[in-house]
This record gives sequence, structure tokens and C-alpha cells, in this order.
Amino acid sequence: MFEKRIGIKELNNKVMSAESAAEMILPGMTVGCSGFTTAGFPKEVPMAIARLGKAKGLTLITPASTGAELDGALAKAGLIARRYSFQSNADMRRSINKGEIAFSDLHLSQVPKYIDSGFLGTMDYAIVECCGITKDCGIVPMASLGASNSLVKYAKKVILEINTTCPESILGMHDVYDAPYGSSIPINHPGDRIGTFVIPCTPDKIAAIVFTDKIGSTPSFKAPDAVSSAIAQNIIKIFQQEVREGRLPENLAPLQSGVGAVGNAVFAGLKNAGFRHLTMYTEVVQDSSLQLVKDGILDMCSTTSLSLSEAGLKELYDNMDFYKEHVVIRPQDVSNHPEPIKRLGVIAINTAAEIDIYGNVNSTHATGSSIINGIGGSGDFSRNSRLSIFMTPSTGKDGNLSRIVPMVTHVDNCEHDVNIVVTEYGIADLRGTSPKERVEKIIENCAHPDYRPLLRAYYERALKNASGMHTPHDLETCFEMHTRFLKTGSMKP
Amino acid sequence: MFEKRIGIKELNNKVMSAESAAEMILPGMTVGCSGFTTAGFPKEVPMAIARLGKAKGLTLITPASTGAELDGALAKAGLIARRYSFQSNADMRRSINKGEIAFSDLHLSQVPKYIDSGFLGTMDYAIVECCGITKDCGIVPMASLGASNSLVKYAKKVILEINTTCPESILGMHDVYDAPYGSSIPINHPGDRIGTFVIPCTPDKIAAIVFTDKIGSTPSFKAPDAVSSAIAQNIIKIFQQEVREGRLPENLAPLQSGVGAVGNAVFAGLKNAGFRHLTMYTEVVQDSSLQLVKDGILDMCSTTSLSLSEAGLKELYDNMDFYKEHVVIRPQDVSNHPEPIKRLGVIAINTAAEIDIYGNVNSTHATGSSIINGIGGSGDFSRNSRLSIFMTPSTGKDGNLSRIVPMVTHVDNCEHDVNIVVTEYGIADLRGTSPKERVEKIIENCAHPDYRPLLRAYYERALKNASGMHTPHDLETCFEMHTRFLKTGSMKP
Repeated sequence: MFEKRIGIKELNNKVMSAESAAEMILPGMTVGCSGFTTAGFPKEVPMAIARLGKAKGLTLITPASTGAELDGALAKAGLIARRYSFQSNADMRRSINKGEIAFSDLHLSQVPKYIDSGFLGTMDYAIVECCGITKDCGIVPMASLGASNSLVKYAKKVILEINTTCPESILGMHDVYDAPYGSSIPINHPGDRIGTFVIPCTPDKIAAIVFTDKIGSTPSFKAPDAVSSAIAQNIIKIFQQEVREGRLPENLAPLQSGVGAVGNAVFAGLKNAGFRHLTMYTEVVQDSSLQLVKDGILDMCSTTSLSLSEAGLKELYDNMDFYKEHVVIRPQDVSNHPEPIKRLGVIAINTAAEIDIYGNVNSTHATGSSIINGIGGSGDFSRNSRLSIFMTPSTGKDGNLSRIVPMVTHVDNCEHDVNIVVTEYGIADLRGTSPKERVEKIIENCAHPDYRPLLRAYYERALKNASGMHTPHDLETCFEMHTRFLKTGSMKP
Repeated sequence: MFEKRIGIKELNNKVMSAESAAEMILPGMTVGCSGFTTAGFPKEVPMAIARLGKAKGLTLITPASTGAELDGALAKAGLIARRYSFQSNADMRRSINKGEIAFSDLHLSQVPKYIDSGFLGTMDYAIVECCGITKDCGIVPMASLGASNSLVKYAKKVILEINTTCPESILGMHDVYDAPYGSSIPINHPGDRIGTFVIPCTPDKIAAIVFTDKIGSTPSFKAPDAVSSAIAQNIIKIFQQEVREGRLPENLAPLQSGVGAVGNAVFAGLKNAGFRHLTMYTEVVQDSSLQLVKDGILDMCSTTSLSLSEAGLKELYDNMDFYKEHVVIRPQDVSNHPEPIKRLGVIAINTAAEIDIYGNVNSTHATGSSIINGIGGSGDFSRNSRLSIFMTPSTGKDGNLSRIVPMVTHVDNCEHDVNIVVTEYGIADLRGTSPKERVEKIIENCAHPDYRPLLRAYYERALKNASGMHTPHDLETCFEMHTRFLKTGSMKP
């Protein structure tokens, strides 16, 4: 397919050190980097840019989160002025919340559209990690696709990082598709293929090629803890009920799940729940889903990223032909596109940072002011899904913070997009309910028992003081739990 | 086509008085009524139910808002216990905000899905206003379609109100299409037809037929005032800029606009803006759009309702063949469906109740607690549009209320869904901005000058007190303007 991973001879003279490539990045430039979670983000060139330390005031666009070698290194070096579209790195987060980096948090399905619009800046360079280049100058992506096709399309120049840890046999797992206005997304089953295996490019656009054999940061896959397992069991109860009531077929509907420990636990829990022939139409596949594929329970995964532990990556790489029959990696504007999500009737399962007694969800902010990660794909999926579930542990910060609150301090997924709320304590099914009917369900079924009296007291006060009885709120005290937390470190009195 | 409006002889014996039909509605029943704005809602039977006064504890489902003869009459009679999915009637609103009626506010595209799910109750009767019944038992709708096809499909029995004010020549203006999971919406142009002219039904399902010659309540079409005209001019400036910058073609893209005076003003303003071959893909067409069709500026309107003044209705009825070439009336789960909205690249223009300095929009609530109307289609369109504009007069209540506030008291359209904010004072283009960058644009370009010092003072305080600098908020004082309004009747100190 390609010799020594570069299928075009004339490109051999573009191979250089990370430092030489990094020298191309000048102060104030707009740089797009590939990557979606820990899969497929460049490491060598960003670390070299950080070491050089000269390219100050950069605008950094990525499809979604990346790892320490990119977000972490550049944030610590103080080189980033502006950041799009999602992040989950501690150093990056710290700089944003200090006010040093202007961050703009976008629906992940819309990132390519924003790149196209020019509002994120004119992209001087795209730095894209890949597995290799075919003889037709097609870029073979790693275990994610994200917005790499848009980065390559819209950047003036492209720097490629060829990562030799990924076997060439990954060719054929991707489904690259350009979706401008006016186009359809003719996906009628999660496994349908509508595009090409590689990202189209031209040799003259490629400014540098850097080789690496670093795997880079990967998530560690931990066995689910008691809280995550209890949440997972509650979600499985919902599935069983929906099948029993005839609202879902026996093999459910294509599943989407947010990234993280709880999402991983849900799919781990599905192993012994008795379901068969499951499918996913999601943005990230984690270790537990790969295991379900191996176990023959999950037939097909449509995703834009495989966020795997080192062991998970090894499993994938060692059995590529098997997984290529069960996994399609799409661009994020297809994986998260409203048209197939709606058509397939996807079940959306997303994690909330906090949920209020009326069912509004904060997905992004701590105490209204600090960004956590970003909205990610939660809004893409929740709004257009057939069933939208939001889950959260009932408390955080060692029990000092209730994740069920009187009023959320930021809304990313509004009451209209939240069908069912789940914590380790139980399930609040909000379908068909008025705001006041939700209060009892959410407090009594989902809140931590330690916080129920506080929440009931707030609701009583709201009923007494509110200006209207549709969604009674007491605007003078609705954030009392939050301000107490800020002052004392606990929401408890 | 049909004789005396009933094409099936055996149905002639189902014709009865409104009172006889109303007797069928028993206490505690779930009743669906057609109607979307003032177009196509039944009047005779609901008024008779109200007069009889016996059917207490009803659940009332409508596709969207209706008028005084339905929502008003039943709310005043105290017969409604539960109400879905949108309303805009003063009496209904009062009863909801007193806590007498449990109201659940839904995305209008999702109403048919909710009816299907059973979570709104099992529908005993659908009361549907129509123009007549064909010999194949097809129901010919009035100047709206909404969810009438779903009401007929899922109700146990159907009561038809045949309104003889609507000429039979309306047959052919509708495009009835059932959109279950797994189906595509093959609309590639606002005028594409994918369904049938009539709502399918069976004679045995029809329990009663009532005739009426009442037009019922209609909106009055007023000439735009200075504030609405200024907002409209700002929106036209945006269109001109987008065309100049190459982000929109010269005939723009299909337009959606919220209902009301400002929306009407925008389309009135388009008359002399120089655009040609415009199209709409929207949920409601008002008088000013019909005028643009007549003027040859607007080529095609896709909608689910024609919300017209009496003069507008007369214009439509007198020129049905002309308007049938330029108007398609669809079910609301097609008019507001994410798939065509995304594919066509619709420009969404919606009205906000309040907007905060970070660009979050409250579309539904007064001071966090009282429902105004509902989210309507704003979320359906804003999330999936190519360009999402929210507009509002800078103040309300004779200047005592600023519609630009530090933090909105309810979020329906979150920051991620708001591209541009417009008031009569100016334009805040939020694309590509971080939260803090939005603050200056919104306060300085859009807020009323009387409120700018208050808003600036809040932002300074938030910068000083906030726990993070991404979206600085001072949770102790963010609703100070609202609580002052509740206490004194004005947000001003």
C-alpha cells in the first residue's frame, strides 16, 4: 500500500526532525491539530514548539480534547492565546480559568462548519498525526478522525506526524465524508459506509513529515467503582423497562455514551444484561465497548474516536481485521450529525456536572464561572436522540458538593432535552412531566440523602416566594448552596 | 372533490351540534386539538365543552398555540388539569402561573414523537378543524397542519369541525408525511413535496362532525413600530454583510423566523432590501411574508402554519391557486425537522425574552418562575441552523426591564446555539468569541444605554469575585436586577 509509510517518493525530502518542523510555527499563527481524546493527536511537533518557546500568541484549534503532549505542553509553555473547541487537560484548564487563554466551547458536530466559516481564524498550519500517506496522497488517520479532513482541507500547509506504533492495516477502518450544505448523510445503519478510507491531500500542501514511535498519553482503564456500577445498573433497568413497554426493540437502538468512567461502566454492565446485537452511533468508543464487540454482544460501532488504554490499543492493533468489520471511524460532523442521529433513533447517554430540580443540565461549568471540559457532543446527541439520559454521581468533592442543585449555574442541555436523570440512588423519568412534578422525582429518587432536606427546604421557600408557580424559584437564594461551597468548601451548612 | 364538504355518504349521520359532540368529552379525558397559532384550531366544540362545564380535569394536547375560543375558553372554565405543548393565551398562561394547570413545554418538532410515546396520555379524542373530508376519508386541513396527522393517527376517536370559511380549493397546499425512526426526509429544496394532500383517516374513527362558519380570533397586523423596524434593519445589515463576505449566496438561504411583531417587521423590511428569489423553511408564515410572495421577492415558503390577519386570510383564500405554487404546509415534525434544517442550511431568526452578557438566551420564563409562551420551534431551528440570530427589543415594561441581563433566569437556547444577538441598538456577532469577549459586544452594542452602567458594574464585580475567569459570575448578585424588578417594578436602582 505504501512503502515505509510514504507512498510518494517526492515527499521523502519533507521528512525532518520535530524541531525543524516546529520552527515553521511563528508567533500569532493559527494552528489546527488533529486528535479526539487521546487518539490521533500529534506529540513530537507540539512538544518541540513548546521547547523552542518562541511561537507566542497562538490560536490552537483541535477537533476535541487532546493529551499532555499537546494541550499540556503548549499551555505550560504559555504559548496559547486562544483555544477552540474542547479540552480536558489540567494545565490547559488552569490557564483558561486564570483568564490567560480565551477559550470558546463549541458543539463538536459544528467544529468543521466553524473552521469553514473563517471565524476561528485562517489556519496557517494543520499538524496531523497519521499512520501514513498512500501513493495517491491520501492521509491514513490513526484511531480517530475528528475534524482532520477539515483541518487538511482548510489549512494553508500541513505538517504530518507519522506514528509507526499504529499498524498500516488500519487502512479501511475510516469513512471520510465531506458534508457541505445541501448534502445528505445517507446512513441508515450504524455500519453504513458513505465515504473514502483516507483524507485527500496534495503533495504541495505537505510542508513537513515527522516520524514518531510514541504512543503518548492514554487513559487508564479502571474497573468500575460502586457508584459507577450502580448508575450503570440503573441505566440497564431503564433499557429493560423500555423494551418491556414496547418503546424499544430487544436489541435497543444505536447507543451513544459520553466519555469517562461512568460511560465505561455502563458498557461494562451491558456484558451480563442479556442484550444481543447491540449497535453504537457515538463519538467515542472506550475499552468496555471494544470488549463487548469481542464478546459478540455489540455488532457495530460508529464513532469518530477510539479512546483506548494501552491494553485496548494493543487489542485493536493485534486484531485489526476483526475490528474493521465492527468499527467505522467517521468525521465528527458525521458521527455527531443531527440527520443520522434522528433517523437512527439514537439513545443518548451523557454525563452531567450538575442537574437542577427542574431537570436542567450543566455540562461545562464549576460554580458558574470555571470551565471543566466543554459541551462536547452532549448537545448534538441529546437534542436529536429518541431518548436522552443524563447521569451523574449524586455528589462530588468527597460528598461536599451535591450534583443535584436548586438551580444550575450554567445550562448546556436545557429541560427540554432531558428525558431521564440517573444517579447511583435511582431514576427520575421526566417524560411528560411539568416542572413541579420533576422536583419530587429528582430530589427523592436521585439526590444524595444528605442533601435532600436542603433541596426540599429550597423548594418550599421557592413555592412561598416565587413570582410564578410554573417553575417556582427564589432568585435570592437559588445559588446559596454554591456560594456556601465557595466560602467553606462544602455545600452542607 | 367532495359534496357539501363530506365526501362519504355514511358520514352524513355523524353531523351534529357542537353541544352533542361536546357531551362526548368526559371528565379526566385526554383530548388533542388541532391548531398552530390562530390557524386551524377548533372553536365550536371547545366552546361547547366550556359552556357545559362538566368535563373537569382534562389533559389538553395541541400542536402549538391556539386562540381564545379554545385555550381561553377552557382555561376560564377551569376544565384543564394538564396542558401540552405550547400556549400563548393570557387566560391559559394565568392558570399555569397560578399553579392550577400542569404545563409541559416541548420542542415543537418533538410533539408527534411524544404523542406516539404515550407519555402525554392515551388520547381519547382528537378534535380537528378541517376544510372537509374527501371520498377516500382524507381530512383536508385548514391553513395549518401542525400535528393534526398525529392526533388523528393516535386518538381513539376523532371529532371534526368543518370550517366553511376556508375554500375547498385549499386542497393541494399541504404535504402530509409520516416520519417514523428510520425514515429519511428527502427535502432538498423548501418547495419539495414528499407526502399527500390530506390526512388519512377511516370513517369508523370519526365520532362527530360539526359545521362552523366562524373565522375565530386572528392576529391583527400592525405596521412595524420604530423599535421593530430598527431591529429589522440590523438583521438586513447582517444579511448584506454575509453576502459581501461570501458566507451566503445573493438570495441568502432558507429563512426561519419566530412569530410576532418583530418577525413580521423583519420580512416587511426585506421588501426594499434588494434581495430576490428568497425562500423560507419555517414553522409560521405571517402577513409580511405573504406580501413578499405577492411582490415576487419570496419564491417559496415551507411552513406548518399560516398565521394571518383577517385581511391576510382573505388574500390567501381569494388567490389560492397562486399561493399553492409558493406555499407548502407540512407537519411540524417535518417543518421543524433537524434533517432538512441542517441540509438546507437554514438561517434561524428567533425572539428572546432575555439574553445575558455571555450570550445565553431565555425564551420562555419571566423572572425565572412564570411561563411566557414556550420554547416553540426556537430550539429546533437554532441548534441545526447555519446561522442562528436572536433578537429582542433592548427593554420591556416601558423601559423598566432590561432584556440584556447579567445572567438569564432560565436558559432555553444556550451560548453554544447563539451566533448573533440583535436589538434596536445594534448587533453583537458572537461567532468565534470567548465568553468574556462577548460581554463587551453585548453590553456596548445591544443593551439599552440606561442599563449599560449597571451591566458594566456587574461585570466588574464578577471579574473581582468570580471563582474562575472563563465565564466570570458573581453568584450572590447575578440576579440583583431581577429581584429589584420584582420588589420595585423596575430593574433600575
